[in-house]
Amino acid sequence: MRHKLLLLTRENDRYRNLLASCHLPELELLDDDPVNIRRADIWLAEPGLAAPLLGHADRLLWLQSTFAGVDLLVKPRQRRDYQLTNVRGIFGPLMSEYLFGYLLARQREHQLYKHQQQQKLWLPGNYKTLQGSELLLLGTGSIAKHLAQTAKHFGMQVTGINRAAKPTVGFDEVATLDALPSLIGRADAIASILPSTEQTRGALSREILAKMKPDAVLFNLGRGDVLDLDALEQQLRQNPEQQAVLDVFNQEPLPAEHPLWERENVIITPHIAAPSFPEQVAEIFTNNYHKFLGGEVLSHKVNFERGY
Amino acid sequence: MRHKLLLLTRENDRYRNLLASCHLPELELLDDDPVNIRRADIWLAEPGLAAPLLGHADRLLWLQSTFAGVDLLVKPRQRRDYQLTNVRGIFGPLMSEYLFGYLLARQREHQLYKHQQQQKLWLPGNYKTLQGSELLLLGTGSIAKHLAQTAKHFGMQVTGINRAAKPTVGFDEVATLDALPSLIGRADAIASILPSTEQTRGALSREILAKMKPDAVLFNLGRGDVLDLDALEQQLRQNPEQQAVLDVFNQEPLPAEHPLWERENVIITPHIAAPSFPEQVAEIFTNNYHKFLGGEVLSHKVNFERGY
Repeated sequence: MRHKLLLLTRENDRYRNLLASCHLPELELLDDDPVNIRRADIWLAEPGLAAPLLGHADRLLWLQSTFAGVDLLVKPRQRRDYQLTNVRGIFGPLMSEYLFGYLLARQREHQLYKHQQQQKLWLPGNYKTLQGSELLLLGTGSIAKHLAQTAKHFGMQVTGINRAAKPTVGFDEVATLDALPSLIGRADAIASILPSTEQTRGALSREILAKMKPDAVLFNLGRGDVLDLDALEQQLRQNPEQQAVLDVFNQEPLPAEHPLWERENVIITPHIAAPSFPEQVAEIFTNNYHKFLGGEVLSHKVNFERGY
Repeated sequence: MRHKLLLLTRENDRYRNLLASCHLPELELLDDDPVNIRRADIWLAEPGLAAPLLGHADRLLWLQSTFAGVDLLVKPRQRRDYQLTNVRGIFGPLMSEYLFGYLLARQREHQLYKHQQQQKLWLPGNYKTLQGSELLLLGTGSIAKHLAQTAKHFGMQVTGINRAAKPTVGFDEVATLDALPSLIGRADAIASILPSTEQTRGALSREILAKMKPDAVLFNLGRGDVLDLDALEQQLRQNPEQQAVLDVFNQEPLPAEHPLWERENVIITPHIAAPSFPEQVAEIFTNNYHKFLGGEVLSHKVNFERGY
């Protein structure tokens, strides 16, 4: 066998079964013995599990991340002498389910009707619809494109933010982060799908958050450090009609003592907006392995400089 | 003024303002004095308010319903010597918001994560997605077509049911009501948008409901009498993993003593899935009024025989 694969995920058994059934040529699936960290030339790994072990990976040529977010692997002083690929293109539909599930639940007042049902009250509320409301997406990559498509289906206006204000199919308007102070004030819903980079960290600052509409809803679906969490807590305390739906945090799990857990106008979920289904990750790995074998350029290669 | 319009809605003031601003030619907007029931030749009316007064409408030529459902106006012994039009084509997006709001809330486990948040628990659940699941739509009209489109966007399989199993754009498969016993057993979600007619009343019977998947969710969005509500209550009591989301009932409001109000696996909303926005209804009326003036065929004419 020419190549040796190390699995470093919380679902190694599942991945082992999936990959064994593919009978990939010239590939040995190593077991979980720590000595294999030194032996493997290919890793299929979660960034959080791989990062502390990278120094011992004597033969590493290629690491396929099972996650989209790889910021733990591209920090300034980490090694860059191997090919890093992540998973892309599979998260859009899942993110749409998450974002629009919570957005519709808010817009169409699931809580109000639930409380009325508990009191056996038959009280039609006001007319509410997503049609004509405005979604601001921080990010215009494959996930954001899918979210934009769903938003258009629901009749929303969609503005996107990317590095160069590059016009992007499916967005009514695209701007750079510099325009955020003026754009955020007209959005009914804001969703960050930004990766964690030098430019994006802290982009949703206290000053920016203060400009949100009185009844806006903010989603953080990308990376925790894009958002100033303490500023958000204060903002939401002062603006009970605003809401935040948070799936990612700087520190995960979010510490039990964090006051956000108890805020009525916050929804906290444990990084489940768009899980990496092992079946889909295995398919991406398999496609890439064939390219790797044939000396071709790998798909979804991460640029260490850019950070994603 | 050649024509006289009577408003018979719970939002007469709003309609009066909307229509006054249109300055429709040859049209007098009558006030709410009961004597005007005899004077008006055109009614803009809710079926439930119009039905008991039809016998006094000495000059009625055309009634524009503000609702889609007109079964109260097409009962066998009621008069049919006038033109009846209803509103169509405006409810699809609203119904999609309602159906997919509740479907996503169930599929993506809003309740589970809410309970976990209350306990400050960080526990990612199982992978769940709408992708690949099956939606069975009873009805293939304009609302159902829109629901099918949304379902396809979310990666679902969609089967429709109509009178002649006529292939319909956007549906993977179309069948007649006769196929319901076999189709209902493979659907993850079922939604009735059927009108109330001789053929559809009681279609969701005890025997049919008993064939639902152990974790299916049933939506009733069309007419209450399509569904055997007592049978449903029993069915849901015996199958706690099943769920019903009900917006329409035979008797509205649903009586406070009905046991469904208290069932954990039932969501009851007060006929708000797709409200008639007065702005949209007024637009339909205005378009039709110009046709009426010009002697043209009116849009959205109801066939008294067929019942919709």
